[in-house]
Amino acid sequence: MRPKPFNPELESPESEYVVDLETGERWHRSFNRTLYADTDRSSVVYHSNYLRYFEMGRAALMREVGFPYREVEESGFVYPIVDLAIAFHSPLFYDDPMWIHTRPVELERVKVTFNYTITHGETGALVCTGHTRHCALNRSGKVTAVDPHTLEMWNSFQQGITR
Amino acid sequence: MRPKPFNPELESPESEYVVDLETGERWHRSFNRTLYADTDRSSVVYHSNYLRYFEMGRAALMREVGFPYREVEESGFVYPIVDLAIAFHSPLFYDDPMWIHTRPVELERVKVTFNYTITHGETGALVCTGHTRHCALNRSGKVTAVDPHTLEMWNSFQQGITR
Amino acid sequence: MRPKPFNPELESPESEYVVDLETGERWHRSFNRTLYADTDRSSVVYHSNYLRYFEMGRAALMREVGFPYREVEESGFVYPIVDLAIAFHSPLFYDDPMWIHTRPVELERVKVTFNYTITHGETGALVCTGHTRHCALNRSGKVTAVDPHTLEMWNSFQQGITR
Amino acid sequence: MRPKPFNPELESPESEYVVDLETGERWHRSFNRTLYADTDRSSVVYHSNYLRYFEMGRAALMREVGFPYREVEESGFVYPIVDLAIAFHSPLFYDDPMWIHTRPVELERVKVTFNYTITHGETGALVCTGHTRHCALNRSGKVTAVDPHTLEMWNSFQQGITR
Repeated sequence: MRPKPFNPELESPESEYVVDLETGERWHRSFNRTLYADTDRSSVVYHSNYLRYFEMGRAALMREVGFPYREVEESGFVYPIVDLAIAFHSPLFYDDPMWIHTRPVELERVKVTFNYTITHGETGALVCTGHTRHCALNRSGKVTAVDPHTLEMWNSFQQGITR
Repeated sequence: MRPKPFNPELESPESEYVVDLETGERWHRSFNRTLYADTDRSSVVYHSNYLRYFEMGRAALMREVGFPYREVEESGFVYPIVDLAIAFHSPLFYDDPMWIHTRPVELERVKVTFNYTITHGETGALVCTGHTRHCALNRSGKVTAVDPHTLEMWNSFQQGITR
Repeated sequence: MRPKPFNPELESPESEYVVDLETGERWHRSFNRTLYADTDRSSVVYHSNYLRYFEMGRAALMREVGFPYREVEESGFVYPIVDLAIAFHSPLFYDDPMWIHTRPVELERVKVTFNYTITHGETGALVCTGHTRHCALNRSGKVTAVDPHTLEMWNSFQQGITR
Repeated sequence: MRPKPFNPELESPESEYVVDLETGERWHRSFNRTLYADTDRSSVVYHSNYLRYFEMGRAALMREVGFPYREVEESGFVYPIVDLAIAFHSPLFYDDPMWIHTRPVELERVKVTFNYTITHGETGALVCTGHTRHCALNRSGKVTAVDPHTLEMWNSFQQGITR
């Protein structure tokens, strides 16, 4: 299946945000580079490592918006992943640069979902797309409503949309 | 969303196969135990490690059927994952035993898909379900038809179905 | 530097222990097989994964002796590693079987050290040797004397020495 | 054992190099932050992940000096680790910033050794020290003399020493 085209343009020269010219969607982006540790004997990045990259993207977005995930946990909540998916389009090799694009896409009463789009840092080639859906738990491990910090992160991101 | 019940029964006392009494589906199963290395600071297994468990299950199934994945690669093919998904139902903690159930579910001309169901090794609780879909590549990295070893693995597994 | 020869012989047919005929030392041994996830683009196991194998060996030894590390932690102690070292002699490749040999070698008032020797599961070739030294902490994170379970593990292992 | 004090001062405001005021030694430094994936159930970074951080430091140093390790491999050499060691002084927790200090310390005919010192990115606390020793292999896997790129990396680093 041919993936949807992804055509990101920086919001402004120093911005950490891009707008996808295909859809008008706003994405946070952060930079990373593959490690030798990430590759496997077929010379490409082993698939599970993309979940580390997704975590990097999610953490960078939340920090940028002013609510690092560490503070969410310190305030008494934890957000385990309840489902995830990844579709791979082209591999990353050793020492490849990448842009990790992250975007909060769905807010439910007790859950929040992030989408990810990773592109090659030089060629712009689409590497993979995916999502993680997280469920809010309180300190006793009970399902609970999404916490105020995460709601503010959500609102800040949405209000930043310029098109 | 409530997961479908999974009710595995061993085909015979020493068997590595179970039949799910809910669906009649046959699954290979293999045993594993979580490591300290697999856990994260919320005390449960970090989500990406379930992809290692899926690999363990897939490798054990292929070895059992007589076609270890190493031999598939030695014969000139490689099977990168083109998409995957996991749904998490209950966490595994440190040192927990688990059964990894694996089942080849779809054979396309150039792709093959495995389903996985992990259960707690003592309580039988459903831990997670998921799939990985793999695309056949030849030595030059071109998409190619599924190789003879994998076809035989597929056929052996299907012929083993007893109900 | 040429490594010391290692010449393990099973204590008895079903035993989980070997005696090194070179030194008379007793070692616990456990079996493992490398994963695709463990390899890197040079086709061999990435070096940090040997620390996972060491953890597997340590856990298997403690379980065998009757004091799983999980129970040590449940009784209020934690044993972070204070120093470690590995010397590599020959690589493991994908799907290689291995024997992980583990041996408690030094008991200090607040510390305990394990040695490890990994050999290829078929050829017997020496893969690597190493150690981890652990310091006992109590629930408040203070350095404390080695706990009773670990002392018993230590004594059980020593009393098992047959030569 | 009390570690040697480490007292790094930047060579200049924008520099990627520090000088340890205790010893006069020059070190390259790079920044990183711990991931949730890096932690374990005792809330600190699992020990094997420090080897990833060492790889990050080594890669950043080689890139900075103008000889990325990828180019070394492309020129026909590979540098597997023959021995390594780590001493841990204080733990890193989730989301902690760190400075990874890296320094090539020994050049043998067929081997090269790097030292590492990781400090907490805010407090400056000493986290761990360690080394990796690498052996040069050619394309056929034979031990060979250290390659010209690595020699230049070595010389560039040494010539940069200002005290």
